[in-house]
Amino acid sequence: MSAFELHILGCGSALPTRRHNPSAQIVNVRGKLFLIDCGEGTQLQIRNNKLNFNKIQDVFLSHLHGDHCFGLIGLISTMGMLGRNNPLRIHGPKDTEQIFRPLLDYFCAELPFEVCFDAYEKGVHTKIFEDSSIEVFTLPLKHRVPTSGFLFREKAKPRHIRKDMLAFYGIPLNAIPSLQEGADYTTEEGEVISNERLTMPATTPKSYAYCSDTAWKESLIPLITGVDLLYHEATFLETHLKRAQATQHSTAAQAGRMARLAEVKALLIGHYSARYSDEQVFLDEARVEFSNVRLAMEGLKLDI
Amino acid sequence: MSAFELHILGCGSALPTRRHNPSAQIVNVRGKLFLIDCGEGTQLQIRNNKLNFNKIQDVFLSHLHGDHCFGLIGLISTMGMLGRNNPLRIHGPKDTEQIFRPLLDYFCAELPFEVCFDAYEKGVHTKIFEDSSIEVFTLPLKHRVPTSGFLFREKAKPRHIRKDMLAFYGIPLNAIPSLQEGADYTTEEGEVISNERLTMPATTPKSYAYCSDTAWKESLIPLITGVDLLYHEATFLETHLKRAQATQHSTAAQAGRMARLAEVKALLIGHYSARYSDEQVFLDEARVEFSNVRLAMEGLKLDI
Repeated sequence: MSAFELHILGCGSALPTRRHNPSAQIVNVRGKLFLIDCGEGTQLQIRNNKLNFNKIQDVFLSHLHGDHCFGLIGLISTMGMLGRNNPLRIHGPKDTEQIFRPLLDYFCAELPFEVCFDAYEKGVHTKIFEDSSIEVFTLPLKHRVPTSGFLFREKAKPRHIRKDMLAFYGIPLNAIPSLQEGADYTTEEGEVISNERLTMPATTPKSYAYCSDTAWKESLIPLITGVDLLYHEATFLETHLKRAQATQHSTAAQAGRMARLAEVKALLIGHYSARYSDEQVFLDEARVEFSNVRLAMEGLKLDI
Repeated sequence: MSAFELHILGCGSALPTRRHNPSAQIVNVRGKLFLIDCGEGTQLQIRNNKLNFNKIQDVFLSHLHGDHCFGLIGLISTMGMLGRNNPLRIHGPKDTEQIFRPLLDYFCAELPFEVCFDAYEKGVHTKIFEDSSIEVFTLPLKHRVPTSGFLFREKAKPRHIRKDMLAFYGIPLNAIPSLQEGADYTTEEGEVISNERLTMPATTPKSYAYCSDTAWKESLIPLITGVDLLYHEATFLETHLKRAQATQHSTAAQAGRMARLAEVKALLIGHYSARYSDEQVFLDEARVEFSNVRLAMEGLKLDI
C-alpha cells in the first residue's frame, strides 16, 4: 500500500457553524492513520468518513484552543468502548497531559489501552515522530498560545524490483533488500548485473505541511520549502487584516504568499472564519498570490 | 407566551453513531430555555434546531458519563465567543465543578459571563430550581455513578382575565392581579361581582419527567405519577435484559411498565443502544406495556 492521503474532517474556525466542523484531519500513510487536531465532533467525522478508529496510533495537537482539542476526550472514550488495545500517543504542547489526564482518570478509568502524552518543545523545529515510512517534525507557528504546525515527510523509498528480470537471471529472493537499496548483483559465476537492469527508480518521497493556527511567519518559509502539499490557515480576508493581526491569524492572501515564497507544489486553505458565508472569496484572494490552491472542505480526500 | 415544549437534541447512548447524537434536550418554558444533559455536539444541535444559546440560563446534568456532558465545555466556550453576559448555572452531581472548573480556567479564561455550579445531593428527591413559572426537582435514579433525573413542574397559573367583562363593568387594570388569583371585585358602590363572571379557569399546570440513565427503580413511581410527559431511557430490548442489568440501564418494556404504573399521560423513549439499527423494535416492545408511547428522534419538538 503506497497511500499518502489527507482527509479533511473539519476546516472551520473557533465558532462552530452548520457548514464547518472545527479543525481535524487524518493523514493516511500506507494504512496507518495520524490524526492532526481534534475539535468537538471529530469522532463523528471519523465515522462519517468511514475511517477506522483503531488505525489511529498517534494524535498531533497543534495547540490547546478548544476548536483544536475539545473532541479528544470523547474520541478516546469511544476508542475504549470499541475495545481498543493498542496504545495511543498524543503529541501536544506541554500542558496537554495536565489538562487531559484528569479527564481520562475520571471518565475513562477502565480504558483497555494506554494513553501516552508526548510533550513537544515550543518554538522549535524538531523531529517528534518516526517510523519505517515517515518522519514528523514540528513547525513553530505564531499564535496567541504556544502553537506548532507539523511537517510529514516520507522517508526515501526502496527502488522498485523488476520481477521479470529477477526471474530471467534466476536471482534469489534474499537478494531483494540490497537491490532495493541500489546495489548491483553478482552471480555465482562472477558476472555483475547492474542495478539499473533489475530495478526501476523509487517513487519520490512526498511531504505535507500543516500550518494552523498562525499569523504570518517569515521564518516558516525555509522549513516548508518545496513540500508537495501545504495546508495553511486562511481565517480572514485582507479586508479584515487588522482583525487577523489582533487574533494572530492569517488572511487568504498571506496563505497564498506563503505558498509562493516556499515554492510548494500545492496549497490547501481552511480554518475559515464564520463571518464569511461563501468560501469562494478565500480562493479568489489566495489565487492572486499562488495559482495551485484549493479550498478545504469536510469530506475532502487528497492524494499528497 | 405559554409554551412548555421539549426539543430532542440527542437521544443516542454512549457509543456515538451517525444516526443519533448523545443525550441532550431543551425544555422551553415560556421562552426560557433549560438544557438537560450536554453530550458532545450539543452546541451544533442547538444551532441545527434554531434555538438561541443566550436563552439558556440553567443546565441540568443527570450524571457525569461522557455521553451526557462532553459537550459542556464547547458550549460554554461558544457562548463566550457570542458575547453572552448573563450568568450560566450548572446543576450537577457533586464532582461537576471539580471536573469542569479547571477546563473553564484554562480554555475560557476571559469568559464575559459567570458560570456557577450548583451541586445537588445524590439519592434525594428535592427542589433544586424555581422561578415564577416553574419548579425543578431531582429524581434519584439507579445507575453506575450518582445519577438523577429531573421533574419540571409548572406552577399554578393565574386565571384568564375576560377583557370584555372588565370593560363592561369599568373595572380598572390595577384590579387584575387579585382577579387572576380568584378574588371577587367590589365596585365603589359596594356591588360584588363574582370572579367567575370576570375570569375563566387557568390552564392546568403541566409536568415533565426526564429519567436517564437508570435501571428499573420501583421507588421512582410515586415521584412521577401522573406527569404529562415522561422521557424514560430504553437502552436495550428484553432480549438483552442481562446486559441492561449489568450496565444499569432499562429495556423498552421496563420504560413502558414505568409509564403504566406511574399512570403518566404520555411516554417518550430514547437513549438507544447503537447495537440496534431500527428503533421500531423499541416502540413495539414498549407498546405492549403502555399504549401512548413514541420514539425520541433528533429534531423532535413536543408540546408538553
